[in-house]
Amino acid sequence: MSALSPVLDRVESQRDRYVTELLEFLRIPSVSADSRRKTEVERCARFVADKLQAAGLETRVFPTAGHPIVYGERLEAPGRPTVLVYGHYDVQPPDPLPLWKSDPFDPRIEGENVFARGAADDKGQVYTHVKAVEAYHHAGVPLPVNVKFLIEGEEEISSVHLDGFLRAERGRLACDHVVISDTDQFAPGIPAITYGLRGICYMEVHVIGPAKDLHSGSFGGTVANPANVLAALLASMKDPQGRVLLPGFYDDVRPVADWERAMWATLPFDESEYLALTGSPCLVGEAGRTTLERRWARPTLDVNGIFGGYEGEGSKTVIPSWAGAKVSMRLVPDQDPAKTATLFEKTLAERCPSGVRLRVIHHSGGKPVIVAADSPGIRASRRAIAKGFGREPVLIRTGGSIPVVGSFKEILGTDSLLLGWGRPDDNCHSPNEKFNLGDYQKAIRTSVLLLQELAEA
Amino acid sequence: MSALSPVLDRVESQRDRYVTELLEFLRIPSVSADSRRKTEVERCARFVADKLQAAGLETRVFPTAGHPIVYGERLEAPGRPTVLVYGHYDVQPPDPLPLWKSDPFDPRIEGENVFARGAADDKGQVYTHVKAVEAYHHAGVPLPVNVKFLIEGEEEISSVHLDGFLRAERGRLACDHVVISDTDQFAPGIPAITYGLRGICYMEVHVIGPAKDLHSGSFGGTVANPANVLAALLASMKDPQGRVLLPGFYDDVRPVADWERAMWATLPFDESEYLALTGSPCLVGEAGRTTLERRWARPTLDVNGIFGGYEGEGSKTVIPSWAGAKVSMRLVPDQDPAKTATLFEKTLAERCPSGVRLRVIHHSGGKPVIVAADSPGIRASRRAIAKGFGREPVLIRTGGSIPVVGSFKEILGTDSLLLGWGRPDDNCHSPNEKFNLGDYQKAIRTSVLLLQELAEA
Repeated sequence: MSALSPVLDRVESQRDRYVTELLEFLRIPSVSADSRRKTEVERCARFVADKLQAAGLETRVFPTAGHPIVYGERLEAPGRPTVLVYGHYDVQPPDPLPLWKSDPFDPRIEGENVFARGAADDKGQVYTHVKAVEAYHHAGVPLPVNVKFLIEGEEEISSVHLDGFLRAERGRLACDHVVISDTDQFAPGIPAITYGLRGICYMEVHVIGPAKDLHSGSFGGTVANPANVLAALLASMKDPQGRVLLPGFYDDVRPVADWERAMWATLPFDESEYLALTGSPCLVGEAGRTTLERRWARPTLDVNGIFGGYEGEGSKTVIPSWAGAKVSMRLVPDQDPAKTATLFEKTLAERCPSGVRLRVIHHSGGKPVIVAADSPGIRASRRAIAKGFGREPVLIRTGGSIPVVGSFKEILGTDSLLLGWGRPDDNCHSPNEKFNLGDYQKAIRTSVLLLQELAEA
Repeated sequence: MSALSPVLDRVESQRDRYVTELLEFLRIPSVSADSRRKTEVERCARFVADKLQAAGLETRVFPTAGHPIVYGERLEAPGRPTVLVYGHYDVQPPDPLPLWKSDPFDPRIEGENVFARGAADDKGQVYTHVKAVEAYHHAGVPLPVNVKFLIEGEEEISSVHLDGFLRAERGRLACDHVVISDTDQFAPGIPAITYGLRGICYMEVHVIGPAKDLHSGSFGGTVANPANVLAALLASMKDPQGRVLLPGFYDDVRPVADWERAMWATLPFDESEYLALTGSPCLVGEAGRTTLERRWARPTLDVNGIFGGYEGEGSKTVIPSWAGAKVSMRLVPDQDPAKTATLFEKTLAERCPSGVRLRVIHHSGGKPVIVAADSPGIRASRRAIAKGFGREPVLIRTGGSIPVVGSFKEILGTDSLLLGWGRPDDNCHSPNEKFNLGDYQKAIRTSVLLLQELAEA
């Protein structure tokens, strides 16, 4: 590995600049869900392209019908494997804003952490690979593999245009390994490789009643109230233990394998620490399943937002004209998002009482994923992480969804290596998102090592 | 009645000015629920006081801990009855604003109607009595009764400070009749006297779970989702037919009397016209009860607003930290709002699952009311309306609540005469509220006649 010394030395010497550049990246409010942020999202794509260019890659920004996809490549290792790094430069909306201790787009460093929207999800994580490739470039050391980067701007809105791009650019994107850093370590100091992801089916339902808000005194008792009906429909979808009550919902759920259950039992998982992390009064869920099993290997149905009628201060006596909810289901292998969406819509229609109409919007879906836990790619990753972080990683699943992993498998035929640099308490999708700058530096080092390990895998 | 001719002539000649002044009244955005409108609410109180003064009344604005109460009196008919006119100068919030065809606070006249927030509820209605008294004053005709006006600014936020005022000023407010115009005619051209009102119990419930919004992938399946729990709690409170499922809720409900049911059957009530007014797909409600019975004499439970989690465009994958709803119950004689509030809170607490906490806010209550339909006051009102509108009024109940009617009975010992100038399609509490200017003029005339009839009652 002595050939890597100049690269690793370079990484060591550039620590401060890496942080400065990350702050610059985090200052761009690239909220893909917010159409008013379109210009900022585009500015962020340009930022990423410039940095790929500076890292020695041939770079191109592909427009889509939505936000642009940034692509970069350096293909100077003939006969060697090709590694495609995937990540996203868009971020979740920052609301509820009042709960942030500082501006989500004015990064604040406190102790070892940087606080900002996108710090861990995914700017801080994806940027480690950009800096690793740059370190080879600056050190004058040839890359041991062919490298491609695909950094999109719509991950937080379900990668709506990515599949089309993968199909259209199949040849350009062909690769032997996809590397994605958009997951967590198992715990601080316990790095992890994620071999399973839940999928997602994200729906929105509107219950529509009167033509306008009605006076609840003059009309109450004679017309269906859309907010009451919505509550009844949502309540009918889940029992108090969290079991989803859509008929057939569990038909395709793959049982947890014995080796997985055995491995998970060895993980240092502290229920009370986890509970503290949520801030909930207690943990709940399906009887007879451990917390890790419920998070990683059981499907869910969660209301992500609910709205309708008067939300202001005090009281307003209306029967709202309509009410709506955003509802997402996390899916596990071998559930299918499209089939689930159909089931959801059909069940709603069957249960909808007279007096209201339904509108159902299918926002997005992503397939659940499991990859072989002992592939050459996973073994190479374990070696790189063991050296970069100084500790052997554990093998885990995660409750989140990275739908693109399914797309890479389906369209490019490539498995993804999910190497997570985040921490479980990073507040992804929540106020005060953060990323550990110590891990950031270790991850850049690990990425340098990974390219070498994959060259030999 | 010839003594009234100069007064009625005066009313006839001032029609245009009456409209101009009403528009001025309607331009003041006196939204009592909105603390940002406090100055406007105060300006509105001052407007009302000035107009009472100009009508020849001795006037005083009483501050309260909330919005001011405007009081006026002219006590120059010794030995004659005292009539207290009650009304309110505050209005409902105008939202949802996008559904208004014109600015809710920039009154627009189209055909016979004026469109503005507060046009019918209650500015247009209460102002008829101010103009009637003014007409006596301008015509130089002594008022046939002693007159008091009490026009408050918190009716739309449940008259929070009125009861205290009634108690503190019992002597000043003593009267033989309370006159309130804040209800509807039965139909266009069919004036009505309302002898029964539903009461109200307005609650707000917050379901509180995680300390912050959580990533629904990382945490889904392990913690209670407050929005799902809220939906389940609300769903548990009402069956699909609209029957309220709080144990004991119906214990104090007074059955509809045979004479009422017989009278209601004679009213020209057109179900399909009523349905069109609501804009709902169909009418729904308790089996075996007519629509009028359900509106007027059966209690309800309606969600007036529901909120929590992500409400923006697109998708956001969070388990919301909390979710809430505004829920009001319309009550009928002899249900009690305080008892109902306790029942609501107790039932929620019993049904609340582990994993969340509850916060329940009791916004307000108002007792249901029934007055004798054949009192001297009602008979005098029938005569005045028959002459003023050219048609005998019908006797009805209404589904709405005017809690102050119960307060007048309890604190002053006086029954209220509910003489409604509005129309069922006036969109009170809805966008595009309106008031018929023909009825406005007839009502001013009727009010002039009413004072004479009450003098002789």
